Amino acid sequence: MRSFSIFCRTPNPARRFVPRFTSPCASRFRGRGRGFAETTQKHRYQLSKFKDKNYAVTDPTMATTTLKGQPFDRQVLDSMLRRRMFYTPSFEIYGGTAGLYDYGPPGCALNANVIDAWRKHFVLEEDMLEVDCTALTPAEILKTSGHVDKFADWMCKDPKNGDIIRADHFVEEILESRLKGDKEARGVKVVEKEEDPKKKKKKTKGAIEAVKLDDAVVTEYEEILAKIDNYNGEELGELIKKYEMKNPATGVQPEPPVSFNLMFQTAIGPSSNAPGYLRPETAQGQFLNFAKLLEFNQQQMPFASASIGKSFRNEISPRSGLLRVREFLMAEIEHYVDPQGGKKHARFHEVADVELVLLNRHTQLSGKTNVEKVAIGKAVADGTVDNETLGYFLARIHLFLKKIGVDQTKIRFRQHMANEMAHYAADCWDAELLTSYGWIECVGCADRSAYDLTVHAKKTGAPLMVRERLDTPIKIEEWQIDLDKKKFGPFFKKDGKTVEAAIEAIPQDKREALSQALKADGKITIDVEGVGNGKVEISKDLIVIEQRTRVENTREYTPNVIEPSFGIGRILYCLYEHNYWTRGSEGGDEARGVLSFPPVVAPTKVLLVPLSAHESFKPLLKHMSLKLRKLGVSSRIDDSSASIGKRYSRNDELGTPLGITIDFQSVQDKTYTLRDRDSTKQVRADEETILKAIKSMVEGEKTWADIEKELPAFEGQEADVPVR
Amino acid sequence: MRSFSIFCRTPNPARRFVPRFTSPCASRFRGRGRGFAETTQKHRYQLSKFKDKNYAVTDPTMATTTLKGQPFDRQVLDSMLRRRMFYTPSFEIYGGTAGLYDYGPPGCALNANVIDAWRKHFVLEEDMLEVDCTALTPAEILKTSGHVDKFADWMCKDPKNGDIIRADHFVEEILESRLKGDKEARGVKVVEKEEDPKKKKKKTKGAIEAVKLDDAVVTEYEEILAKIDNYNGEELGELIKKYEMKNPATGVQPEPPVSFNLMFQTAIGPSSNAPGYLRPETAQGQFLNFAKLLEFNQQQMPFASASIGKSFRNEISPRSGLLRVREFLMAEIEHYVDPQGGKKHARFHEVADVELVLLNRHTQLSGKTNVEKVAIGKAVADGTVDNETLGYFLARIHLFLKKIGVDQTKIRFRQHMANEMAHYAADCWDAELLTSYGWIECVGCADRSAYDLTVHAKKTGAPLMVRERLDTPIKIEEWQIDLDKKKFGPFFKKDGKTVEAAIEAIPQDKREALSQALKADGKITIDVEGVGNGKVEISKDLIVIEQRTRVENTREYTPNVIEPSFGIGRILYCLYEHNYWTRGSEGGDEARGVLSFPPVVAPTKVLLVPLSAHESFKPLLKHMSLKLRKLGVSSRIDDSSASIGKRYSRNDELGTPLGITIDFQSVQDKTYTLRDRDSTKQVRADEETILKAIKSMVEGEKTWADIEKELPAFEGQEADVPVR
Repeated sequence: MRSFSIFCRTPNPARRFVPRFTSPCASRFRGRGRGFAETTQKHRYQLSKFKDKNYAVTDPTMATTTLKGQPFDRQVLDSMLRRRMFYTPSFEIYGGTAGLYDYGPPGCALNANVIDAWRKHFVLEEDMLEVDCTALTPAEILKTSGHVDKFADWMCKDPKNGDIIRADHFVEEILESRLKGDKEARGVKVVEKEEDPKKKKKKTKGAIEAVKLDDAVVTEYEEILAKIDNYNGEELGELIKKYEMKNPATGVQPEPPVSFNLMFQTAIGPSSNAPGYLRPETAQGQFLNFAKLLEFNQQQMPFASASIGKSFRNEISPRSGLLRVREFLMAEIEHYVDPQGGKKHARFHEVADVELVLLNRHTQLSGKTNVEKVAIGKAVADGTVDNETLGYFLARIHLFLKKIGVDQTKIRFRQHMANEMAHYAADCWDAELLTSYGWIECVGCADRSAYDLTVHAKKTGAPLMVRERLDTPIKIEEWQIDLDKKKFGPFFKKDGKTVEAAIEAIPQDKREALSQALKADGKITIDVEGVGNGKVEISKDLIVIEQRTRVENTREYTPNVIEPSFGIGRILYCLYEHNYWTRGSEGGDEARGVLSFPPVVAPTKVLLVPLSAHESFKPLLKHMSLKLRKLGVSSRIDDSSASIGKRYSRNDELGTPLGITIDFQSVQDKTYTLRDRDSTKQVRADEETILKAIKSMVEGEKTWADIEKELPAFEGQEADVPVR
Repeated sequence: MRSFSIFCRTPNPARRFVPRFTSPCASRFRGRGRGFAETTQKHRYQLSKFKDKNYAVTDPTMATTTLKGQPFDRQVLDSMLRRRMFYTPSFEIYGGTAGLYDYGPPGCALNANVIDAWRKHFVLEEDMLEVDCTALTPAEILKTSGHVDKFADWMCKDPKNGDIIRADHFVEEILESRLKGDKEARGVKVVEKEEDPKKKKKKTKGAIEAVKLDDAVVTEYEEILAKIDNYNGEELGELIKKYEMKNPATGVQPEPPVSFNLMFQTAIGPSSNAPGYLRPETAQGQFLNFAKLLEFNQQQMPFASASIGKSFRNEISPRSGLLRVREFLMAEIEHYVDPQGGKKHARFHEVADVELVLLNRHTQLSGKTNVEKVAIGKAVADGTVDNETLGYFLARIHLFLKKIGVDQTKIRFRQHMANEMAHYAADCWDAELLTSYGWIECVGCADRSAYDLTVHAKKTGAPLMVRERLDTPIKIEEWQIDLDKKKFGPFFKKDGKTVEAAIEAIPQDKREALSQALKADGKITIDVEGVGNGKVEISKDLIVIEQRTRVENTREYTPNVIEPSFGIGRILYCLYEHNYWTRGSEGGDEARGVLSFPPVVAPTKVLLVPLSAHESFKPLLKHMSLKLRKLGVSSRIDDSSASIGKRYSRNDELGTPLGITIDFQSVQDKTYTLRDRDSTKQVRADEETILKAIKSMVEGEKTWADIEKELPAFEGQEADVPVR
């Protein structure tokens, strides 16, 4: 997460500067991986062979299925999500804008419920300090963090039609298309999967021609694709020239790649000399407030801040629907911990037995994707996960994703390889969720060491550190240097300060030797830039160098930060895919979609349906609606003229887990039927019992299976009214 | 709200175009009133004489007091709010950026609780359709809405130091300063109220010189100030020249005013030809989704959409702290209603008796600010408020503000005067809250007619309208024109289509005359632009004009929109001022601040304090903390070493309404004391009783007065431990 490919293309990956992201190199292998990365290029080509978009899924283990194991059809789900207004392209009546989407009522409610669950699971449970910082950010801050210089992609312009093309995507697509042509020429069957049958296949995808390539060329192409994210702009330009790649839309070669910064720029205030950006992440605002938050927390360590808010990234040409957008909601935690003492966590024992599916870096280095299910306690103990605090958050992330309805067979934690991480990072894991687009990075969890606080402190001089009173003062043996100020000043005159500063800067490990030299020669020679020839001689009447003991009562340190960072929009999309399935209709018509969200995040918890438009049902509807509101359970009334079956069907698509039917018996004896979305089974009981059952299920205390055992089954009106 | 002064400076106020705001002219009188307006200029000068900022409050009725009637000191409150991190200037370690603020933990929680209350009060209660649209907005949409052309202020540049000055503010300040100098020269006592004693008085405020002015000049200045918002850029430039106004900071006259658009501009995507802006309000996204929302609502009218999100306005030089910021949270409702039938509201009877403090337009026109307390039912009945739907929302807004803790003596609803409103608006009221800055517009509520949907429909061709099946089809008598197509085409040849279109466009009221002319002359002559000499003759063998009856089974109409629009940040600020008071300390030290938020919005509901750090308290603390979390009640533990009194004091400043003390008796018999923030009184009871009492108060069912009657008082440890 918050990784951007460009950082991974520097010549020396081990030392490269990687500002503010947890998983710099999901991108590294993926090209489009800056931000929340899709599956990695490396995995696509070398390992799993998974391909996204218009290409076939050649590794059957990567073909996704619905919640009930049916073949998954993304087109069908997508059209249902739009029809039910979970989301909709922004500004559609004006033609729309790529990478911008609005949430309609159910999407909005799902989003609010996921955020609410997140706040309860993390912020309240751990007493985190939530802050809300501005999206508008002066350039200087993002200059310090590195984003102004390096948060960029390479783009090319088509000289003929002016199209802007993302360079790595372009090379990738041309080579993929040629390899495909080669396969066809060799007679290898390629299952073409058309995205949208109504849309014409885009010209830029390249018209696939069945042209056989030399074996050596195939190998060359595959090698290029495997490391597509390691190329810089110049190198991509060379590839485009060397392999004579032309834009299929115009037949001409694009211009050489230029760097394009991915932040939205603007000016803050009326003066043009106050450039600013929309934040590409919420973390910087938290770092800048560190000192105040520590004060607010009464100087107690460890502590965490948290922030939920919109971030913005100006993608060159967004694809992958809701997974790569230009404006998105993030939820980020910055947990500050003392770097000394192994980064233990006081509550680690509470999660030690939680089992995670891990894909560690050693496995990846050996070219495999085998995962292992292992208790986090063991993973930390054997060093797979660097420390307890990081392990604690990995487990907490896992529990959160489970709670909100992520399919447990479609989640893994992938560790970053050494060359994927920033040089300062201690360890980093991504929670990846499997979708029809491949493994999607949805949460990053990195140990970022003291990097962020350090750069901002250095730039501003603000003391972004912790001062801790030591219970037992520590004695420090050190070599101290005293100058005879009275003689020193007059002797060096105008150079005095420069020489003094150079002496003070002499590190401890050099001082002992100097002390011996002073004793032996009666003088020492030190390097002082800018004074004389750069060498300065100091005689023993001006200086004393002695080993002494110093007592420290306080300790100052810059905390390390463990950063769990959530892409909420991506998680929502995965929830759609993970909870979707279809139910065959009795009439043999088209299959009906169901979204089996857990009650805790379902947009609406209860559907209230009267059997018909009969007047006698109305007071009961209103009564039950009020009762549910009082319980804090969201409900909707559907008193439209459609059949009960149709009304339930509509709400199955909206993911409403429970339904109350009000019929003539309800009017007589105040009993109601309660319907389960997933099984369509019903029970019947009096008002109080039904409400209690609902509350227990919404709060996650009971499941439908429990309720079914407790209450008498009802086989009534839904079957009566033809279901279709 | 969302009013901007520039709109009010057009020559013909009755017909001027006022895009997207509910109260264009709070601004009109205030200068800085675009956005959420402060008190109006007119009121400041002509009526109440209230002055903000560094000037004295000359009308004592406008001097604000604390919740307990003490003189209000804004500096003291502000420093407390910052110390407790309710808010903090953004990027402070980098020197800060005007108009940008972050919320710290208590500010964030208060904000979340107000939003939660808003969502329950409006969205859930009324089954509104919540949507979440993007802040990034392509220029074309804001061009249609009028913002690109007209959402602007006038600014001047100082030629010497390059300072950017807001023109109307500049004129205002210079004249105010001269009037003040005149008063001093005349010996009128002016109580100077310095904003921040540490800060030097800004040079731009003008060094007050005691210079006596001619009486005529005084009158001239006062007249200019009274209508400061009616001047356009050119006129402001003339005033600056005529009265030789110089920037006190440089001693030179600023350059002529130029228009400055207040939206933050950026580019969406890599191409420079896709300009975009950050939305200045959330409404446009809702309008663009109207057709989909109507479909989602199964074509049922009336309905409302709602949106909560950040908006952005690039203020030239923001002042007034949290009241005028560049990035702020809005909550807006667009309630769509059939314009026919008087805009009745089905639930109006539920609120008819709610009494509001109204300042109607007639009172204002007569130069007064007298308010009247009147039931909304009466106000709608006598026509003071235009219609039931508007009245319904005014009452609902009032109830909401009351619920979250707005002081009922500091609220009024001010009606817009005819020349304040856009020409299309039917009626408009602002909920204004009284603060030390004057009356602050916090909620606007306008009947915007069909304007917004109409402009977007016209621009895009999208059918932003309602099609309604008529129960009784209506018969329409109309003049229909038939053409003999066989002859018509060959006769007019290439001009055929143009002529046909011109004929179709002939309005009903002209057709009868044409029919008679045709009968009389055997031909008619019509105007057709671009064909021949612009006149075309059509003989009776080509055309028939007859009156016929048409039966309509459906009716199409563009709904009108009633728009309640909330500036959440402003409301939060008013909550601080309205709920703040001070308690004298027993030791006679500095007074201690208290924020008496209602439990429903208080950042934390319960403080848990152990009597000391004794180990035996720890399990009970954890136990109670878990119990409260289970009840959905937020709590904080303060087990710091400070005295109980100090710990409670700190939490009084944070606005925590309730406190549980755990003492040695608690360890023995599981009883706890419960403390009330406002009275500092305590009761004691067993765990279950205490938890029940807390829940009932947090949910607003009971007050402390109720609990005090029910449970035995406790006069224990807080008094034991010296309070200071």
